[in-house]
Formats: sequence, structure tokens, C-alpha cells
Amino acid sequence: MIKLAIDGMGGDFAPKEICKGVIEALNKFDDIEVILFGDKDLMGPYLTQHPRLSIEHTKDYLDMGIENPIAEYRKNKEHSMFKAMDYLALNKVDAVVTAGPTQAVAVGAQFIIKKMDQMRRMAIAPIIPSLDGKGKILLDSGANVELGAPHFVDLAIYASIVANLLLEKENPKIGLINIGSEEGKGRPVDREAYDLLKESSDINFIGNIEPKEIFHTEADVLISDGFTGNIVMKSMEGTAIGLGEILKRELTSSFLSKIGALLMRKQLKRFKKSLDASEIGGAMLFGINGIVIKAHGNSNSHAFYNAIKQARTMVEKDVLNKVKEVLDKKEV
Amino acid sequence: MIKLAIDGMGGDFAPKEICKGVIEALNKFDDIEVILFGDKDLMGPYLTQHPRLSIEHTKDYLDMGIENPIAEYRKNKEHSMFKAMDYLALNKVDAVVTAGPTQAVAVGAQFIIKKMDQMRRMAIAPIIPSLDGKGKILLDSGANVELGAPHFVDLAIYASIVANLLLEKENPKIGLINIGSEEGKGRPVDREAYDLLKESSDINFIGNIEPKEIFHTEADVLISDGFTGNIVMKSMEGTAIGLGEILKRELTSSFLSKIGALLMRKQLKRFKKSLDASEIGGAMLFGINGIVIKAHGNSNSHAFYNAIKQARTMVEKDVLNKVKEVLDKKEV
Repeated sequence: MIKLAIDGMGGDFAPKEICKGVIEALNKFDDIEVILFGDKDLMGPYLTQHPRLSIEHTKDYLDMGIENPIAEYRKNKEHSMFKAMDYLALNKVDAVVTAGPTQAVAVGAQFIIKKMDQMRRMAIAPIIPSLDGKGKILLDSGANVELGAPHFVDLAIYASIVANLLLEKENPKIGLINIGSEEGKGRPVDREAYDLLKESSDINFIGNIEPKEIFHTEADVLISDGFTGNIVMKSMEGTAIGLGEILKRELTSSFLSKIGALLMRKQLKRFKKSLDASEIGGAMLFGINGIVIKAHGNSNSHAFYNAIKQARTMVEKDVLNKVKEVLDKKEV
Repeated sequence: MIKLAIDGMGGDFAPKEICKGVIEALNKFDDIEVILFGDKDLMGPYLTQHPRLSIEHTKDYLDMGIENPIAEYRKNKEHSMFKAMDYLALNKVDAVVTAGPTQAVAVGAQFIIKKMDQMRRMAIAPIIPSLDGKGKILLDSGANVELGAPHFVDLAIYASIVANLLLEKENPKIGLINIGSEEGKGRPVDREAYDLLKESSDINFIGNIEPKEIFHTEADVLISDGFTGNIVMKSMEGTAIGLGEILKRELTSSFLSKIGALLMRKQLKRFKKSLDASEIGGAMLFGINGIVIKAHGNSNSHAFYNAIKQARTMVEKDVLNKVKEVLDKKEV
């Protein structure tokens, strides 16, 4: 049985969509057991009795707009997300799933679950959309504003194993996010990371990838520091939102175009869906002593179900031990 | 009369589209005079006699895929782009327009035209699309991989004056590209730049802007170092290309959707055009002793015409002297 601790109160549409996603997952997978953390009175209306579901009541939960999660953690450890993480730290569960605020997830990961001995840094690794619909792993999207070159290698190894086991890519290709495709491009840290990634026999490094190739690159993993990764992710998001609005404005601008849009309703819906990475799963926390999936803050029940499914797969495939195995064998 | 030195051989579709763009501009503006640099035999077929057009024959021109423009410049200064820049350095013309390779433009700007005394660094500043179609200025998109915090201020002042005179924005708003909107976010250089930009009385600084707001922000200028700016620009480009392809795939996926696409042909064309920043103009080189406009490498004649128009406006509005005036008065 795979045991999951789930934060019932994180996310813009919690607890309703979270609870619905949990019930959907319990009905779909008979090998999971869920402990749901949160306010039982607020969650109750959206839950049904289930033999593999139990509730851990917590009165407190984190505000989605929280500005200083470190200060909050120091003040109060009773929030639903932190309590769920406690269970993971104590090995009472195999993974945590939350749609709570990203920076609070990073704080909890660092202080409660703690760094894996074999890793020097942790990273936040979202799945970004790709042309083939299978997604790619982007990291670090914000756990470490700056990274040293050796950290790139540890994280690339972790990401490579996940790309293999979760995204089912054979010998996953690792690309370094950079401003030019030739060797020698970028900041000093990028050039140094390039050399180390190239030397590593544990990964399949394919060189620098410029973000203008982000949809076309054959890389399954795109790596940089947390500042750059975050900028890439948010630039993609901002561009997709902006283009979506301009497209909508055009499609509703005349009688004929409205009819046109009606005729392609199904296709436009599928177009929108293809950009939605939560169809594939949430962001992962790499480098800590456990599996943590951070679903998108605006997750509906199906997106949250997908994040649960992803956590289940990562536990089932024993990602954590496989990463430790490779890193233990690695020569510094 | 505004005198322009134009590189006739730069760009993926040179010399044909460049020559056509030049003729279009000469016919439109009777206050410009063009000196066209390049191979007269190759350009000839696309040119007509014009009283305000003269040719400076150069046998050599830069390959669009050039990998090491510095080495090339040291070896051979007779390329059409470098010769055009010579004329600007010698004050024989008021501006240079080229669609040649960006890094070569930066090299020529640095070695031939040289840095303005009042500026500590130069920057490449493209215009990026915006929801209102007026565009925004992004900088640095790649002249300096790293910048010190004080350089942000000089460059922001330059960009502010251009946003005012070229994009006709009153009291232009300056945003610092960052991974969070609150003060204190980002790398040490971002936090330091934030403080200096906030202190400056020469600009209207509105704080940190996350790239997920890139289409919605009210900022008219978005500033960061050349690594980050380049990553933002290329992430936008890559996302737009990827989404365009997915959309096209959907729109041609069924009989009905094809009819739908036909009904909204005009709108889809306008949609595509709204993302094309070359409708507004090319990238500018800030911080040097002259006006240089770098049109997109894949410019057609109309895009190149727009770049010429932009150079004309910047000369007419006396951008360079206005920047010098402000910087001369500035207390360090």
C-alpha cells in the first residue's frame, strides 16, 4: 500500500477541489491510502466515507498569498501543509501532495523533510508543456536563486532518473539553459556547469539549449539556477497568457470569426489543454528525503488528481532509492 | 536631411528585402538620404535610381551564422556592416541600420562606434510585443552577460528617454525583471539595482516585474542584465513559436475546424501580426556614440522599412543629446 499525506487546505480552490481530487484518486487506485490534513469541518462537505481515507484535523492552514513562509514556520508549525510534511519526515507516509504556496513548500521541505545526504542542494522542478504532449522537466524553478556548478550535476542526475521513471524517456537528454547553443556561452557558472555536465557519465548531456527552442528541443530536462529557471517558467506563462488573450480578442471580433470559433470549439479547447502542464503533473521537490509534489495553486480536482497520481508513480518506481544508488556510486 | 548608413547585405533575405525596404523608405520620407553599403552587383537588381540614394561598394559581408565576430573584425574590417559603422563613427551619417548578426552588431558598436562617455555599459534593447500593440522596451538582451547595479540606472535612463520619444509614453514606467514582485527578491545584484533605481530621480521606477506579467504589466521598459534579458526574450519567442504550431495543428485537424479557420482568416493573420515586434521596429543599441538599429535577421522589406523609420525618428527627436543632457546633470 502506498501512503500519501495530503494537504487538504492548500490551493486557490481548497478544500473543495482538493477533496474531490482525493476521492477521484482513491476510486481510481486501490493501492493508495490517504491521510488528509486540514480543517475537518471545512473539508467534510466534500468528502465521503472511504476505507482508505483518514483525516488529521488541523485548525490552521497557510494563506496562498503568504509573504514570509520562514517567519510563519518559526511561529506556527501546526498548518495543514507542515503537519503533512511531519508525517513524511517520520516515515509514516511515502509522499506529500499539496497545492499550497510554492515558497512555503520549499521552506517545509528544507526544515521538516530535510536535504538528502547525497545532494548538496534542493530544487523545484515543474513539468512544462512540450509539442508531443509528454512534457519536460524544468529545474531549478526557484529553490536556489544561485547555484554552484557542481550542484547542477547532482540535480541533473536526479532529474534524469525522474525523466526516465516518470516520463518514461529512455536515456533522457539533459540540456543546459543558456543564451547561445555553442560551448563557451553564458556566465562563468554556466560555462563551468557545462564542463561538469559534459564530464559526467551518469547523464546524457546534449549541451546548451536556448529558450527559443523550448518547445522544439529534444532535451527531456532543462536545467539552470533557480533565478533563471524561474524567469524561463514565468516568461512562458506570461507569453501563453498574453497570446491567449490576443487570440480570444481576435476570435470574438466579428460575426464570422465567432462562427469560426464555434466550429473549432473542440480544437480550441484541446489547444488550451495542451498548454496546461497540470495535465501531466505538479512540480517536484528534488534533493530532499522524500517525495513531495506541489500541484499548481489554481488546481481543479482533476489537476490535483494528476498530482496524486504522479506522487504514487514516483513512490511505486522507488525514485528516491534509485537516485541515492547512483549518487552513492558517483565519484565526487 | 537625415543621413542613414544602411547595411545592404545583412539579414536572411539580403540583399533583396533590404533594398526593397530602402526604396520604400526613400519614397515615404523625403527628409532621409541613404548610403547603402554592400556588393553593388548583388544589390543592383533590386534597386532603382534615386536622387537620395548612393552606394558604397563593399565586396565582403558577414555571414548570418558567424560564430566569432570579434575574431572576424580583427581580421577584416571591410564588411558592409563595419563600413557603415565607420561612417557613423566619422559623423558622415546620423544612424546605422542593419539586419546582420546581433553579436557582430554589438562588436562593431563597441569597437567602431564606441561607448558614450556618459555611459558605463552598452545594451541591446529590442522592442517586445504588448497587449496594446505599442510595444515595450526590453534590455539588456545580450550585450553584457553580467551588469553591475549602477549600470542598471544609466541604462534605465537611456531607455526611459527612448520610451518617451519613440514610443510616445508620458513619464515612462521602468520595471526590474525579477522572480517576485516584492522588494528584496532576486539575486544580490537585483536587490542592489532595485535600491539604486528607486533612489534615482531621473526615472519613474515601478518596482519588480515578474515575467508572467510580461504582456500585462504597465511598465514601458523592462530591465535586467544581458543574460536574463536574453533568456526572457528567447523564452517569449520559443513559447510563441510552440503555441503557434500547436494552434495550427489543431486548426487543421478536422474539416469543420478548417472551415472555422477560413472564416477567421483575417483575425488569425492579425493575431500573428500582433506578435511580430518588427511591426514596431528593431532592436536598439544603447550607450554608444550614435544611433544603431538592428532589424530582425529574418526581416522582410516592410520590417526593414520599419527599422529605417525608427532610426529616422530617433535622429529627428535627438535622442542621443537628450540622454547626454540628463546623464551630465546626474549626480554619480
